[in-house]
Amino acid sequence: MRVAVVTVGDELLAGDTVNTNAAWLADRLTARGVRVERVTTVPDRVADIARVVNEYRAEYDAVVVTGGLGPTHDDLTMAGVAAAVGRDLVEHEEAKAWLTEHGGYSADELAEGTTHLPARAKMLPNEEGVAPGAVVEGIYVLPGVPAEMKAMFELVAEAFDGEATYVETVLTSEPESALVDRLRDVQAKFDVTVGSYPGDGVRLKLTASDEGELAEAAAWLRGQVELAEED
Amino acid sequence: MRVAVVTVGDELLAGDTVNTNAAWLADRLTARGVRVERVTTVPDRVADIARVVNEYRAEYDAVVVTGGLGPTHDDLTMAGVAAAVGRDLVEHEEAKAWLTEHGGYSADELAEGTTHLPARAKMLPNEEGVAPGAVVEGIYVLPGVPAEMKAMFELVAEAFDGEATYVETVLTSEPESALVDRLRDVQAKFDVTVGSYPGDGVRLKLTASDEGELAEAAAWLRGQVELAEED
Repeated sequence: MRVAVVTVGDELLAGDTVNTNAAWLADRLTARGVRVERVTTVPDRVADIARVVNEYRAEYDAVVVTGGLGPTHDDLTMAGVAAAVGRDLVEHEEAKAWLTEHGGYSADELAEGTTHLPARAKMLPNEEGVAPGAVVEGIYVLPGVPAEMKAMFELVAEAFDGEATYVETVLTSEPESALVDRLRDVQAKFDVTVGSYPGDGVRLKLTASDEGELAEAAAWLRGQVELAEED
Repeated sequence: MRVAVVTVGDELLAGDTVNTNAAWLADRLTARGVRVERVTTVPDRVADIARVVNEYRAEYDAVVVTGGLGPTHDDLTMAGVAAAVGRDLVEHEEAKAWLTEHGGYSADELAEGTTHLPARAKMLPNEEGVAPGAVVEGIYVLPGVPAEMKAMFELVAEAFDGEATYVETVLTSEPESALVDRLRDVQAKFDVTVGSYPGDGVRLKLTASDEGELAEAAAWLRGQVELAEED
């Protein structure tokens, strides 16, 4: 399963906020065996949201959108997603009922927008906040407030179901430039992929869909490089 | 000036790394008056890098690419950028000379890749590391290691030159849903844009290209909302 993540928000594009939501979603999706193919941040503009969501839903199995839900003028994600799928943005009876009953809001207090979802979308309740999310045509629309996003993701997590993958890391004290041949060799000998991440030492990350193959590859590689102490 | 940022790396898409590079670049570009229109993370694959960079260079005034430079098999950014602009990836004499003279590397030690740039690109020296960057057709290719990226960005920062923008923030204790009308009003009365960011209180961020207009708008808004104590 291949997925794209779209994070909506001028505050991300201005560098006011570090995109920890993207990292959290990528981690959770990867743990479920899903391949995250793109993470893209777009401004709070309907046309930009619609265009990127539409492109990704055509290309990937699902799209997770986060941010830009709520009552204010810069909360345009639901309008963008509705445009992406060619549906109207309509007052959603279930959203209205849910907010009134569970959110403790009166109908008068509910600002426009909060209760509007793309027509015939499935509402996702926001157990940690106010604005509901939605699912429509493989697009999962979640809030941008991290606690709200995380709680809502768990409601739909089972929809993201990829092949199990296994990971092992090998930390070496050798410089990255010295490792080129051995990294090529381990991928030639075993059905694994390898990433190398320099930092304090070089972290070699092996990924495979077969746990036994992974263990053999990691053992082989550990015998080929100078190991560094793990923190 | 409108710019896109492309961050390359499977480690970002797996959620192993939070994309602080993107936030840093977005902050620096915004401070220079540049509008960041997209921040996109792509995998370590030549075709994906080439496709996204090519799309963005057609649409925006410049593209900043970071990550995936270096000697190992998963460092494919230069190949992707070369493909995006339809040029060969060639051994760059200046890169080779710079690495030998300033990097203290002998020609033998220089792994393939590190010295290869898109044909006729301008090399950017890496004053904090090894792999050089490049500029080609409005595409600025920087390393992914934060210290290296930051130092190299400063070498080209003057190329990013937008209209000056001014920012003021107003912190209110009112709930976001109560503010809808006043946020609409401030944008109707003044030539400013407003973002609202709920958290501990709601942070209202006003942006304008005219400093006087901004001050008037902020003063007006402060008179209209219940102010919260700043941290």
